[in-house]
Amino acid sequence: MARGEVTPRTTVKRVAERGSHDPALIDAVIDEALICHLGFIDGGTPFVVPTIHGRRGDTVYFHGSPASRALRRSTGAEVCLTITILDGLVLARSAFHHSMNYRSVMVLGRAREVTDAEEKLQALRAIVEHVCPGRWEAARRPNLREFSKTLVVALSLEEASVKVRSGPPVDEDEDHDLDVWAGVLPLEIEAGTAVPDELMNPGLAAPAHVRWRRPTERLGSTTD
Amino acid sequence: MARGEVTPRTTVKRVAERGSHDPALIDAVIDEALICHLGFIDGGTPFVVPTIHGRRGDTVYFHGSPASRALRRSTGAEVCLTITILDGLVLARSAFHHSMNYRSVMVLGRAREVTDAEEKLQALRAIVEHVCPGRWEAARRPNLREFSKTLVVALSLEEASVKVRSGPPVDEDEDHDLDVWAGVLPLEIEAGTAVPDELMNPGLAAPAHVRWRRPTERLGSTTD
Repeated sequence: MARGEVTPRTTVKRVAERGSHDPALIDAVIDEALICHLGFIDGGTPFVVPTIHGRRGDTVYFHGSPASRALRRSTGAEVCLTITILDGLVLARSAFHHSMNYRSVMVLGRAREVTDAEEKLQALRAIVEHVCPGRWEAARRPNLREFSKTLVVALSLEEASVKVRSGPPVDEDEDHDLDVWAGVLPLEIEAGTAVPDELMNPGLAAPAHVRWRRPTERLGSTTD
Repeated sequence: MARGEVTPRTTVKRVAERGSHDPALIDAVIDEALICHLGFIDGGTPFVVPTIHGRRGDTVYFHGSPASRALRRSTGAEVCLTITILDGLVLARSAFHHSMNYRSVMVLGRAREVTDAEEKLQALRAIVEHVCPGRWEAARRPNLREFSKTLVVALSLEEASVKVRSGPPVDEDEDHDLDVWAGVLPLEIEAGTAVPDELMNPGLAAPAHVRWRRPTERLGSTTD
């Protein structure tokens, strides 16, 4: 199946005009978001855990300890990875039409453990570079012990959809004359000033790759 | 079961010292977070969708259209509601010890549809007031048509846990002499200046309840 194809599972059902399967839009949301939420089933119960991720082409990667239940239950199983960016609160004149502006990607598929050493190394690099581009070059690379103590899981972006809401509130016509302020309160993630580790040589200045203010500012500077 | 009791499902397994079942901490995370992620099962597949929520005492509520698959599949079924606040990126000297500072609540349980009219109205109020305290008083209340077109779902906080990571990176002793900047990049959600709806009377000033900058600033001003 090629990316961008729609499956019954990824058909956006509610408010369908907000849905898309555009790979460029999906990739942009995945790359901008700092974390995602992984859904898996354990003993018939759904579980949702936050995790960081990275993308290489049409594959999204996440990682953790080989003892992680989330990773053990995800490997070889159907999972759902949801990546949401909250862009604003939509304040309508009526309580009923309150909403939020957001971009949310949902990826469905069977997760697989990454066992190939080269793919695993590139996946770890993608995860570190996703969170903080430039960091892979700066930090000490994993040694063999650390490498083997890390479980990396891959999920294909073949079956993915994105839902977007943007713009002003949509009120009932008869509510437009109400004396109620209506509009959008924009929301963004902001990075503060980097806090140096107290155990570090204080002469070491904060590098450029920790001096961004918005998640979008950190993008585009990877060496990939 | 009383809140704060631990069940096999809510025992925090990985990095157990980060886990807690303290109701006050759990409530604080739920109240500060603007959105959550709801996990449910449909046809054997896990799904995760973002949604807004509200809390009243020991119950968390979410809502949507009666046609929403997420709500239909959640009602009467085991679900997982995960609420995550990302507090910072933890940049260690080694790639392996990179992490994030976060607070994440996981609520497990059987979701129920709220059918009692008074509880439903109070739940809708809690959801609106959760996102933007003061808004319930300002906005037009739901009429009977809107009320019946909204499905409200409740989840008890009986079975909930919270996992927290905070503080500086934890590196291997032998890495402390490396010439690598290490520390934490703090992250926060910031609200911008409210954007008025173009269809609104321009003389209507933005009310105080849309003039907060940080999600924590909006709290404590509810009339509940």
